[in-house]
Amino acid sequence: MRVVGMNSGTSVDGINLALCEFSPGPQANTLSCRLLAQKEYAHEPALRQQVLRLCREKHAPLDELTELNFVLGEAFAAAFLHFMRDEGLTSRDVDLIASHGQTIYHLVEAGRTLSTLQIGEAAVIAHRTGITTVADFRVADMAAGGQGAPLVSFLDALLFADDEKTRALQNIGGIGNVTFLPARQGSTGAYAFDTGPGNVLIDYGARYFTQGQAGFDEDGKLARNGQPNQRLVDEILAHPYFKQTPPKTTGRELFGDAFAEAILTTAQQRQLSMEDTMATLTTVTAESIAHAYHNFGPAQIDEVIVSGGGSYNPVLMAGLQAALPDTQVRSFDTVGLPASAKEAVTFALLGHETLYGRSANLPQCTGASAHTILGKITPGANYLRVMQQLFKSEQAEPAAAEQPYLNKLTFVN
Amino acid sequence: MRVVGMNSGTSVDGINLALCEFSPGPQANTLSCRLLAQKEYAHEPALRQQVLRLCREKHAPLDELTELNFVLGEAFAAAFLHFMRDEGLTSRDVDLIASHGQTIYHLVEAGRTLSTLQIGEAAVIAHRTGITTVADFRVADMAAGGQGAPLVSFLDALLFADDEKTRALQNIGGIGNVTFLPARQGSTGAYAFDTGPGNVLIDYGARYFTQGQAGFDEDGKLARNGQPNQRLVDEILAHPYFKQTPPKTTGRELFGDAFAEAILTTAQQRQLSMEDTMATLTTVTAESIAHAYHNFGPAQIDEVIVSGGGSYNPVLMAGLQAALPDTQVRSFDTVGLPASAKEAVTFALLGHETLYGRSANLPQCTGASAHTILGKITPGANYLRVMQQLFKSEQAEPAAAEQPYLNKLTFVN
Repeated sequence: MRVVGMNSGTSVDGINLALCEFSPGPQANTLSCRLLAQKEYAHEPALRQQVLRLCREKHAPLDELTELNFVLGEAFAAAFLHFMRDEGLTSRDVDLIASHGQTIYHLVEAGRTLSTLQIGEAAVIAHRTGITTVADFRVADMAAGGQGAPLVSFLDALLFADDEKTRALQNIGGIGNVTFLPARQGSTGAYAFDTGPGNVLIDYGARYFTQGQAGFDEDGKLARNGQPNQRLVDEILAHPYFKQTPPKTTGRELFGDAFAEAILTTAQQRQLSMEDTMATLTTVTAESIAHAYHNFGPAQIDEVIVSGGGSYNPVLMAGLQAALPDTQVRSFDTVGLPASAKEAVTFALLGHETLYGRSANLPQCTGASAHTILGKITPGANYLRVMQQLFKSEQAEPAAAEQPYLNKLTFVN
Repeated sequence: MRVVGMNSGTSVDGINLALCEFSPGPQANTLSCRLLAQKEYAHEPALRQQVLRLCREKHAPLDELTELNFVLGEAFAAAFLHFMRDEGLTSRDVDLIASHGQTIYHLVEAGRTLSTLQIGEAAVIAHRTGITTVADFRVADMAAGGQGAPLVSFLDALLFADDEKTRALQNIGGIGNVTFLPARQGSTGAYAFDTGPGNVLIDYGARYFTQGQAGFDEDGKLARNGQPNQRLVDEILAHPYFKQTPPKTTGRELFGDAFAEAILTTAQQRQLSMEDTMATLTTVTAESIAHAYHNFGPAQIDEVIVSGGGSYNPVLMAGLQAALPDTQVRSFDTVGLPASAKEAVTFALLGHETLYGRSANLPQCTGASAHTILGKITPGANYLRVMQQLFKSEQAEPAAAEQPYLNKLTFVN
């Protein structure tokens, strides 16, 4: 089965796509994946600004939100069609689209109903492409009492659970999250949580100091020659989120523009230079991760494998290595699957599992009370062909959805 | 296949449920339906007020909207579980849930992206019940350029298209809608649109004059002894919506509280009595329907079959008969399927067609550019069993989703 995974992260930079071909692996309950193509398409600036404004203002005229869901669906469909054209493919080369959409709100406050809102209408994607589209992956985990995140732990555990090494899979997108994989425990030993800010603070600083010219600190240039102000770093790391016991998730509601702005105001009051301020923001990010490992991780971590945009920032990577002297810190790129494709590949995998009716949340990572099937299937014109192929074949075993089916994923060329 | 259809209408009174057993009909492309049970459960007053407030204020804090989607999902799940208990059934007696959810916004303004928003999280329903849940029926039609409504025309056409009689199927819920079925044209001749206000104006008046004691004008008691003020009736019917050429849909955005309030203010200025004001609101509703028939309906209409809450209002029914002297006006109840179950049965039928991958919109009714599969499938714990049964059997013909499959539905006992 050929699946295109799509997502747009908390930074709302663009739409990532990855075309994956999945086939049963050599052993039972394993899957092989061939990454055939991957690409990112930037959002239209006006659309990006509209999404960021909604997230920032935290309220929405109902007409704007209703319309934006469809407009974003068009954007995802357009990105898919560009991707097909750029890769010399047609819709017939793809069986399924798996779209994460765009997170607009993620509500995990105590005393409220756990809930989340992703938009980017799947019916628009299915209609424009003719391809059955799975979307809305987080809600089922939340319905089961989980935090709906991190979902990437499923991919991490299937790829990296090891008989010898205890590993930490660290993603540094807008927000940072980690999946710990204690040695010899397989995917059932995995646990995960959001470590806190990923690139949000650094990105905010980069935009501020370049008057909006740079969206992020490319190659760590802005921070490279600065000295972090340790007093300010410690003050920021005193935030209660960092002391909260996992499972925990966070987002722009907590670590957003207001949080970054307050830091910059303090830095200015203390007359820190641009370089020192950027170094401080970068150090905060690295140390928040390292502290999370010390406080809530396994006693001995052999390897940290970093993915997401932050893995391309050498100052951040060096900071992380300095804070974790006994651990090998390496970039996700080194294992064959490009870090930039990881989230899109994750959603391709999750969409694949949805269609097979197999659970794909890891309750010990999300806090859910049960294993559950994620996602919603929006039938496209190819629905009958795909479903008949799937459910007529022997491969679709009547596995109980209450148990995880997969225990290993392997990338092949 | 046994399907429970659920919906909560524009009036947000409660959740209607209907358990339908579908089986292939005696001829090809036909379906038989046995209505096994049906019931309505009132919404919790606080939840109802919250939904109505959001619809009225037309903007939403994102956290409230995100949470309300899940809270309403719990309400739908609870209604389903009560229904099962009250009817002596268990979840194993049901293969599929089809939930329309609650419409929060329906955007069909010129110059905007056609879009609609229904909430009542299907993942919550599927998790609490263990049953695969189809929801979000309107978005696919809108993605195909339609107005996403009326969807009930599909049921109307399959049930009532006739070789002898030209029929109008009039639903009077909060909003009124009609499906015309010209004789000898089958479902492909059907066309439909929203006629305008259904019960919204009458309900508003009833609430106003009883200081909120009555939610609607039971048996037409409040209007029965009044005389309509024809000048005011004509002024209201001068609203441009009534002159707009179909297909057209409307909702509380246009004919909502503000519209009703303006009428009551005028009525007070002209010193109309309570009875005369209520008679005026009832006459406006009846005449708006009759005018729509004259302006946009077939030349000769043999029968009008009225469903929805309005069919229980004898003053409204008499007004409609008076305005359509050459047509037999009768209540939907007379044909074996109770009017109160019609919408829930419609969604049960639509959910059934979703799973089979068969189109269920009528483009000439909604304005869509194509036939399309409606709905999204949220897998529950029974997903694999249901899908394997469906797609292993001979019944699931690889019919093109681009064409309608069904042409007749029959109710059996």
